[in-house]
Amino acid sequence: MSWNTLQQNRDARLQRARAALGNELDGKSLPAARIADLLHAAIECGDRVCLEGNNQKQADFLGHALANLNPELVNDLHMLQSVLALPEHLDVFERGVASRLDFSFSGPQAARVARLASAGKLNIGAIHTYLELFSRYFIDLPPRVCLIAAESADRHGNLYTGPNTEDTPAIVEATAFKQGIVIVQVNQIVDKVPRVDVPGDWVDFVVQSPRPYYIEPLFTRDPAQISEIQVLMAMMAIKGIYAEYGVQRLNHGIGFDTAAIELLLPTYAESLGLKGKIGKHWALNPHPALIPAIEAGFVQSVHSFGSELGMEDYIHARPDVFAIGPDGTMRSNRAMCQAAGHYACDMFIGSTLQIDLQGNSSTATAGRIAGFGGASNMGADARGRRHASPAWLKAGQQAREGRNTIPRGQKLVVQIVETFREHMQPAFVERLDAWELMEQAKMAIPPVMIYGDDVTHILTEEGIANLLMCRTDEEREQAIRGVAGYTPVGLGRDAKMVENLRDRGIIQRAEDLGIDKRLATRDLLAARNMKDLVRASGGLYQPPKRFRNW
Amino acid sequence: MSWNTLQQNRDARLQRARAALGNELDGKSLPAARIADLLHAAIECGDRVCLEGNNQKQADFLGHALANLNPELVNDLHMLQSVLALPEHLDVFERGVASRLDFSFSGPQAARVARLASAGKLNIGAIHTYLELFSRYFIDLPPRVCLIAAESADRHGNLYTGPNTEDTPAIVEATAFKQGIVIVQVNQIVDKVPRVDVPGDWVDFVVQSPRPYYIEPLFTRDPAQISEIQVLMAMMAIKGIYAEYGVQRLNHGIGFDTAAIELLLPTYAESLGLKGKIGKHWALNPHPALIPAIEAGFVQSVHSFGSELGMEDYIHARPDVFAIGPDGTMRSNRAMCQAAGHYACDMFIGSTLQIDLQGNSSTATAGRIAGFGGASNMGADARGRRHASPAWLKAGQQAREGRNTIPRGQKLVVQIVETFREHMQPAFVERLDAWELMEQAKMAIPPVMIYGDDVTHILTEEGIANLLMCRTDEEREQAIRGVAGYTPVGLGRDAKMVENLRDRGIIQRAEDLGIDKRLATRDLLAARNMKDLVRASGGLYQPPKRFRNW
Repeated sequence: MSWNTLQQNRDARLQRARAALGNELDGKSLPAARIADLLHAAIECGDRVCLEGNNQKQADFLGHALANLNPELVNDLHMLQSVLALPEHLDVFERGVASRLDFSFSGPQAARVARLASAGKLNIGAIHTYLELFSRYFIDLPPRVCLIAAESADRHGNLYTGPNTEDTPAIVEATAFKQGIVIVQVNQIVDKVPRVDVPGDWVDFVVQSPRPYYIEPLFTRDPAQISEIQVLMAMMAIKGIYAEYGVQRLNHGIGFDTAAIELLLPTYAESLGLKGKIGKHWALNPHPALIPAIEAGFVQSVHSFGSELGMEDYIHARPDVFAIGPDGTMRSNRAMCQAAGHYACDMFIGSTLQIDLQGNSSTATAGRIAGFGGASNMGADARGRRHASPAWLKAGQQAREGRNTIPRGQKLVVQIVETFREHMQPAFVERLDAWELMEQAKMAIPPVMIYGDDVTHILTEEGIANLLMCRTDEEREQAIRGVAGYTPVGLGRDAKMVENLRDRGIIQRAEDLGIDKRLATRDLLAARNMKDLVRASGGLYQPPKRFRNW
Repeated sequence: MSWNTLQQNRDARLQRARAALGNELDGKSLPAARIADLLHAAIECGDRVCLEGNNQKQADFLGHALANLNPELVNDLHMLQSVLALPEHLDVFERGVASRLDFSFSGPQAARVARLASAGKLNIGAIHTYLELFSRYFIDLPPRVCLIAAESADRHGNLYTGPNTEDTPAIVEATAFKQGIVIVQVNQIVDKVPRVDVPGDWVDFVVQSPRPYYIEPLFTRDPAQISEIQVLMAMMAIKGIYAEYGVQRLNHGIGFDTAAIELLLPTYAESLGLKGKIGKHWALNPHPALIPAIEAGFVQSVHSFGSELGMEDYIHARPDVFAIGPDGTMRSNRAMCQAAGHYACDMFIGSTLQIDLQGNSSTATAGRIAGFGGASNMGADARGRRHASPAWLKAGQQAREGRNTIPRGQKLVVQIVETFREHMQPAFVERLDAWELMEQAKMAIPPVMIYGDDVTHILTEEGIANLLMCRTDEEREQAIRGVAGYTPVGLGRDAKMVENLRDRGIIQRAEDLGIDKRLATRDLLAARNMKDLVRASGGLYQPPKRFRNW
């Protein structure tokens, strides 16, 4: 019995690659024009291939080359990918190069994923959260070949990722140590990299891409678009949840609702005397909307999944706050930051598209297979957590009060939504669209982003429903209806029961929290537009062009 | 306002260190005899110091040096440490150098931890599971200084950890990118390391230790000590749980109970036709007891938290199974393997000391503050998981059948215990000792290893209790009593209700599973002693001396 088939197979691939590239292979590096030859030599039919599609940076040159391989020579690939963001990510299926997919998020390409799946061109293994997908790379889905992106490489293959380290270290480690082939596109080949993010002996081939890798500023929210309703909701979040539980360590979603909260920290929260008491430590990308809170000394530290375009100089000038390398730029790390979001944070707060009567929430809609990225991981009670904090203990106590169970803490998982979304779609529904998508996409169970029994609070413009304190399914349903406003679900409430829940503090309206709604104006925002953010940063933040009108 | 206090402080420390060491500092390396001078210069009072105490390898030279610093110069340190294994790990508190501790596991030193805590010399922040502690290193507990261990370093500080990579990468990343100081003891300084596990530019000081680092073979179980009761329990586990759910990806505990299961895979499980159907992918240290199952082709892959002494040559010769570097030795990684154990495995099975009537289990006993290592993380339902597998779906379905809740999968969490442990101590109790320890140690909540609502099965020599299928607290209690044998808890059963649970398949006896108890002999073990393991490995496994009587 042979025990080193992987190594032998790896050697055969390397040999084929060397033969194909001949003397155009200079150490580990090859000319961009020869990339197809390398991929044809290094990839075998049926391979598990991990293409680095991150939230932000994309190995787009390699992705494009992969999609254009000859499907008669290379086919039936099993793609592993966090994010499907670019057309090439689906061309590879359209053209018959790949046939199977395990992934986390496909927001921009969700409709095409669904179309290709129903046309039988794309067979979905499963939808994962990020950390879960990385975990499987180490267990049952090690990539045979990975195609990744970095800022620069030296001639030994040492990689510098710059601030967008993101998924790279996890992917390369899983591949390299199972005798896979690691191929990287870099923006530059240099004599000496500013710092080593991935050691050269884990890397097989380096190609300088004709263009810098594609990167998307996903976490930039223009404060000009924040509504006064969002300001009101942010005030309720701060007074009714952050202050109430003393939340020190947290992760925010990426919507305008949570951007509003970030922008109210140095104004509203400061006026409540909350500086130093809430929001000190963050598992978060460098959101531009967080700049005023950082400048006000509200934020002590931020560890990031990835970076954000335009924030480079600001981050560089705030090394006490961010994780900074010897070269002065940030090191992010999606795997470790997701672990931290799960285990080291007391709260996740974010938005959703739909919530049902049990509190299950989903962003799944019919005809779109989108996945959830990291929200499900951060929006789940971390039942393996054992260290206590005041916020965690209080949530756990509320959930267990009067019950005959052993005491335990609990993570705060807050869904913040307006009762109606765009086009007057109600956010509260009797039945999630996820059920329909399950049938369309032949999934085993409906794709729920956050399960009702993990949600602790639902916050709308009508108030906060504290699900921790509900004692029966009926109470929970009425608590949800009680903040669902004029949606059919809200109108279907049992008014008496809702009043009773309000008396018991399970439902809290703005006035119950002592919040004067008249103060909920955009004046409360520490920055009201992009220019304000730039000003708050002392000119260090440089928003991408599309966010500038000056 | 200054935003680079960490960097300035780091520079000051480096300058002091250079001044103290003078020309004895050769690049990054210093003579072992000067270690105290380096630590006095680099460490400040009140620092968070992470000392690499792993499950297996120990930065013992640095730990010893730290404990012997002058407490008048260096004191009030806040120690961060996965494992407290050596006397030095507590001497540091005894001598007044450190005063505060955040940790995961202190098995061998648990009694002394309790004594020092009650004497006011050691203030415990919290007890964590490993991944949770690493997570906090990135959020609110970044180490100011870390003291770690590696196999070798080159003159640039590039580190080779060898197979016991363990916690090192996570610790160094968290420290280096928050401008902390990274100090490493190595067994050797070499011209070129066999592979780079940690890049040199993340490392500040290297010292060649006078002795190789201390390392403990924690995961070696001599098959000679496996009892026939354990063989019977292993048969029930395989037929009643592994086969029943089709468990492909899993993590085992480290006791003799699970060693028995490992040794029954190529015999009993094979005879049931289960090869290729169960136990293919493992998040596990390289347990010697797994050798026969690997040789039989049962095991497709193993990703490890750490390594195991004596397994080096065997691992080297089985690169298809283990994660192997370009140098031919294993790379382990506790952080990624814990993530995988949480998110990529369908089952955790392990033992405990006490189980109460709700199924809560704990290894905590009065007078010993031990922590739980990684069990709580792997023995928790991973509620952020979204990918389906047959085992996960079936467990979720059993838990939700007949209930009005949205479908969801669930992790299998199995506690395997004999009803009486050593000294005839019952494993089933009305009240966990954890309650007493909570009061002694002034904890906020009792230290539970695995919570009852995460446990899916309890397996004893009397049978299997399937807690997933219990519908009320009373049923759950009787299911537990129904497998608790002659313990007071077992004798207190409602015999009629237990029979009813058995009729419904919630309790299963060996005979209900079609297991002939007479076959439960040690003859079923694929290896009956250490020599058999060596033989099974083709002489590649070299057990440490203490496990050899030849």
